[in-house]
Amino acid sequence: MQLNSYLEHTILKQGLTKKDIEESVKLCLDNDIPTLVVSPSMLTLTSDIISTNALSICTVIGFPLGYNSFSVKLYEIQDAIYNGANEIDLVIDNALVTNEDWKGLNLEFAAYRKACSSRILKVIIETSLLNVQQIINITTLLVENNIDFVKTSTGFVGEGAKLEHIALIKETFKDQIKIKASGGIRDKETVEKFIEAGADRIGTSSTLSIIG
Amino acid sequence: MQLNSYLEHTILKQGLTKKDIEESVKLCLDNDIPTLVVSPSMLTLTSDIISTNALSICTVIGFPLGYNSFSVKLYEIQDAIYNGANEIDLVIDNALVTNEDWKGLNLEFAAYRKACSSRILKVIIETSLLNVQQIINITTLLVENNIDFVKTSTGFVGEGAKLEHIALIKETFKDQIKIKASGGIRDKETVEKFIEAGADRIGTSSTLSIIG
Repeated sequence: MQLNSYLEHTILKQGLTKKDIEESVKLCLDNDIPTLVVSPSMLTLTSDIISTNALSICTVIGFPLGYNSFSVKLYEIQDAIYNGANEIDLVIDNALVTNEDWKGLNLEFAAYRKACSSRILKVIIETSLLNVQQIINITTLLVENNIDFVKTSTGFVGEGAKLEHIALIKETFKDQIKIKASGGIRDKETVEKFIEAGADRIGTSSTLSIIG
Repeated sequence: MQLNSYLEHTILKQGLTKKDIEESVKLCLDNDIPTLVVSPSMLTLTSDIISTNALSICTVIGFPLGYNSFSVKLYEIQDAIYNGANEIDLVIDNALVTNEDWKGLNLEFAAYRKACSSRILKVIIETSLLNVQQIINITTLLVENNIDFVKTSTGFVGEGAKLEHIALIKETFKDQIKIKASGGIRDKETVEKFIEAGADRIGTSSTLSIIG
């Protein structure tokens, strides 16, 4: 299996330097990795370094805890697009789920979809904090709002991606939404298992070990 | 030693309910805890619940990784104040430190100070990611920009507050800036040690165990 095209090389450590970004861009271009995920404050620098459309720039919104205000997340999306983001990975506010505010969640998803226009929008639901019914409820709203991807985890909270959650989403929603698995995926065997379970993309910081 | 007046009761878990907020407000009011720290998305609810000036509402900006854009952090401050925040705890972008962009850091501090007006502004520097010289350089800029507090840690990254860092800042800057120790402080003995080392406030989620 050719894994590289499934990977999103993710560099979300604090305190990265220009050299870190340059090396990651080179890693992606040299190995046909299609997407590089950077923090919002690194977008302008990353965008300046990349001079080809062959590498898509993704960033994270409301990351990693998701409890920024709705208004701030909308503003952060606009700011990220202005600074060069081609793709947006946005964390939901889990309080909307625990308080069962499905109407509020629906309104937010519609607004985020609109703010991203035709850019790829992935919504991070942090599956390890949720039960099966919550995962289905949220993903139903994502599908209804034409969100491109449901993404499992930030990698900063809980247990990260689990195969059973990928299988659950795939079985329930088929091809109505794509799946990005992320959080704790660090070797080739694990990547293959997640792709077999139904993941369309894999977010990882361990790209070198995986493709090595 | 009467510890209660030093404490900032901190509830920054994801997915909190109205009941969680109500219980925390009661805990603070019943025990003369002066400050409650909540996430930005919980500000409006918290502000609606609190009907006295005896309890100050604090929130977190760019939390916990600090690598949101400068523009987004400024917007998030304004949004938080509008939603009822009396105090602001803001995380620096550690990339400005590793890239030694002291001019950029200085400009940001000046803008954050202005955006907070006379409200208490604490800047979180995540001491466990820094060396001694970096801590001194950053705190010098904080003092020059009339930032009220230097705060050690978010509690989500690294090792949290260390006594040696509190002592270092206190010895170097005396009363030029206040110190908020946070990150991993969970019992009365530890609180007392941090206060003796020079901390003016203690951020903790373990308020009940500490005052119990």
